[in-house]
This record gives sequence, C-alpha cells and structure tokens, in this order.
Amino acid sequence: MPKLWSETIDAHRRTVRDAILEAGWALVTERGLMSVTMTQIAAKAGIGRATLYKYFPDVEAILAAQHERHVAAHLGELTVLREQPGAAGQRLKAVLERYALICYHRGRHGTEELGALLHRGEHVARAEQQLTALFGELLVEAAATGELRDDVPADELASYCLHALAAAGGLPTEEAVDRLVSITLAGLGLSDSAT
Amino acid sequence: MPKLWSETIDAHRRTVRDAILEAGWALVTERGLMSVTMTQIAAKAGIGRATLYKYFPDVEAILAAQHERHVAAHLGELTVLREQPGAAGQRLKAVLERYALICYHRGRHGTEELGALLHRGEHVARAEQQLTALFGELLVEAAATGELRDDVPADELASYCLHALAAAGGLPTEEAVDRLVSITLAGLGLSDSAT
Repeated sequence: MPKLWSETIDAHRRTVRDAILEAGWALVTERGLMSVTMTQIAAKAGIGRATLYKYFPDVEAILAAQHERHVAAHLGELTVLREQPGAAGQRLKAVLERYALICYHRGRHGTEELGALLHRGEHVARAEQQLTALFGELLVEAAATGELRDDVPADELASYCLHALAAAGGLPTEEAVDRLVSITLAGLGLSDSAT
Repeated sequence: MPKLWSETIDAHRRTVRDAILEAGWALVTERGLMSVTMTQIAAKAGIGRATLYKYFPDVEAILAAQHERHVAAHLGELTVLREQPGAAGQRLKAVLERYALICYHRGRHGTEELGALLHRGEHVARAEQQLTALFGELLVEAAATGELRDDVPADELASYCLHALAAAGGLPTEEAVDRLVSITLAGLGLSDSAT
C-alpha cells in the first residue's frame, strides 16, 4: 500500500476512534454507566454497530480508552510545565498547582461508579507511577538547590504530593484548591511566597 | 421471651456472625476474591450452608460487613486518642500518627481487587465523613489555641490530612510513615517538635 494512502487510513481510524470515545463519554456522564449500550454509542458517533465492534468490544473498553487519553493529555501538560525555564522550586509549584486543578475538575465530572470502574485499571497504576516519577525528579532538583527539606527521600515526598493534592477532587472552589496547594508546599518546606 | 434468654441468643448470633466474618476474610486474603465460595466459608466457620445464608446472602456481603467492623474499630481507637488529656496539637498529632499507621497496615493486607470492591461501599463514604469530622474538631481546637495555621478552614485541613496520610498505604517502612506524618504536620503549620 502506498505510504500516503496508509496515512490516510490511519487518520481515518483515529477520527472514528475519537468520535467513539467522545460519544461513549458523553452518554455515560449524561445517563450513567449502566444504562448506556453499544447501539446508543454507535448512533451518537454516527457509525454502524458492526463498525463500532471492530474498534471496541464493550462500553467499559471505550471508557477506559477515553480515560487513558485524558490521563495522557494531563501528563503531557505537566511535562511541559516541568520543562519550563526557571528555578526547580518554581516549576515544582507550577506542576503541583496544575495537578491539583486537574484533580479538582476530575472531581466535578463523571459519576462515583465511573470513578470506581476506571480507577481499577492498569493504566491508572501506570499513570500514578509516571506522575510520581515526574514529581520526584523535580523534588530531587529542588532539594539539590536547597529549596526544600532534605530529610525525606524524594519518592516519599512525591507520593505525599500525589495523595495530598487528590483532596482537591472534593473541594468546593478554586480558592480552596489554591489553599490546598499552599498547605502541601508548606509540608515540603517550600514556602509559598519564596517562589 | 425472658430477658436473659434473649441476651443469650443475641450473644450466640454475634458469635456466629463473627466466626463467619473471620472465615470469609481469611479465605479471601489467602485465595483471592474470585475463588472463594459460600460453601468454603461455611465449612471454615464450622456452620452449615443453610445457617450461613440466614446471616449473609453472598461473599461480598460478608467482606463488606467484616470491613465495616474493621473501620468501626479504627474509628473507636482514634476517638479514644482524641479524648486523651493534653493540648489539642498533641492529641491531633497522636490521632494523625495512628491514622497513618492504620493506612500503612491496610496497604499490607488484602488484595488490589478486594480494595476496589470494598472502597466502593457506602459505609466507606460514611467512615470518611466521620474521620474528616473527627480530624476537623481537633483542628478547630488546635487553631483556637494558636497551635496551627489559621488561614485555611478546618474542614479543608481535615480533608488534606485524610488524603496526605493515605500515602502511608504505599510506604515501605514505619520510619517512612513517621516521615509522612511529620511532612503532613508541617503542612498544617504544626511543628513536629512543638508537641
């Protein structure tokens, strides 16, 4: 097959796949996990049922793929922030602020049951490892320049950040999220105003 | 029915119930959730299958009840610590240390799938509310005596504690748990040595 033609097919497959993911997510957040069928998702995505089944075996697989796409996008955002110029402490603060906002918005969409379903997935464990590694590298850098406490290993500090900031999912306002970030930074010995 | 006799029946029922819970928990942690049957639980608890079904409809219900019993015991322990004599900051520290150890030990027993199953339960949401309230009251007391930061509402600080200390579930040693508690207290503005 000529290269250009295979690229066109790839692009087409990605477009269909994206349409399926959007449709599945929209229907499930609107109606709840249990009441959404493959037929409804196919209709909303504008494709036939047979085509849908060539892409995904069931509703759970669609949601897991959509969630994985979200997670990858968030990791991308955080990686960009980490690689900005500036002091390590400043970049750490930017990364943690963004992560807290991600948790805050995540707490706002989706249902309880959806969360329980998705957070059992293997890709979530992988994403947590990637986040911990991303935080950990910045923490090592910041500790090396004396910007934070050096009495606790970086991987423990990273895990603390990951868990503490997850509290943002239950907070009522973005102001409360800012306060959570400020408390979390204080735990690291990284003062809020120093950055 | 005379009172003493009905007390005897109640005590008997509690004994049977406890034996079922212990048997179910032991089998599931040993063999995994999917491979344990009601018949095996009845045999291990030393009762007949028909009797078992008078107490619980299925394996999940047994595990949920056992988990609920654990949670209630932990809440009891923490309440005792909260009500000790002493400064609020000191009692807060004792409660948070104990809670971190509970999370640490919880991370050590049980399987992933078990955790996912149990943490979807309604009684877990209720337990989290009770924990947040318990932490929150102590935080209000400690803030009133000037022992910690007063720029963040107590319920937000309580939620921060609950989430940050949950990191103990993935830590390798009790020393790491101590460090986590010390970081978390620093976030509250409650110094480790002050207490």
